[in-house]
Amino acid sequence: MAHNDGFRPIDRQECLRLLAGVPVGRIVYTRQALPAVLPVNFALDTDTSILLRTATGSDLARAVGGVVVAFEADAFDAANRSGWSVVVTGPATLVTDPAEHERLLRTGPRSWIPVQPDSSVQFVRIEPAMVTGRKLAAS
Amino acid sequence: MAHNDGFRPIDRQECLRLLAGVPVGRIVYTRQALPAVLPVNFALDTDTSILLRTATGSDLARAVGGVVVAFEADAFDAANRSGWSVVVTGPATLVTDPAEHERLLRTGPRSWIPVQPDSSVQFVRIEPAMVTGRKLAAS
Repeated sequence: MAHNDGFRPIDRQECLRLLAGVPVGRIVYTRQALPAVLPVNFALDTDTSILLRTATGSDLARAVGGVVVAFEADAFDAANRSGWSVVVTGPATLVTDPAEHERLLRTGPRSWIPVQPDSSVQFVRIEPAMVTGRKLAAS
Repeated sequence: MAHNDGFRPIDRQECLRLLAGVPVGRIVYTRQALPAVLPVNFALDTDTSILLRTATGSDLARAVGGVVVAFEADAFDAANRSGWSVVVTGPATLVTDPAEHERLLRTGPRSWIPVQPDSSVQFVRIEPAMVTGRKLAAS
């Protein structure tokens, strides 16, 4: 891969469609003044914001509330040298409304960790202020 | 996935072994004061630093020379809810030494983009000052 050529930009609608098809993305933020990145399960909410599920009081929850973050998902096929990546950039907020929290426990992103008490779950919402994507077609 | 539990830390040696097995990772940096993330082909150099191949004058090359970045690679299996991720954090430098550039053209990371003139290739080295990893075993 190079970075100034060879990739086709993807429009916002296709970006969201691709995001909806993968279970894991990566949140990018700043932790103790250093760049940080963490893979997370996610889901798209009905308004196309990104929803992450983390633990109450986690490093992630403490670091991203109220700040602008990036969120990336991708899929690449090394054999075909093809793939796509999508980056969503926007403010992250912790979900604090109890009704909203209840709704997301039912409909929001699932965890891959078995059995967590509902009370220890913290949802994070990323507003999709900027959505960019690019696709590398098989040559 | 959660973030404070369920994951087993991976030691540096296993992190490097896992990194050596995947062709694509994601560099995390700051661009115009916003968090940025970009998938890139990479290779481990003989000293275990991370080598990226980009284009001379690319946004990436301009943004990361001399600054601390994070680099992430991972592999997840949704069916088994298992996987790993590794994050390398350290200073990035542009490779400017001609002999080193020549060596990396021969032995360094390949691009997925067909045919680029050697003169337009810029290698970036990330010093692995901090290497952390975690593994989620199938439950």
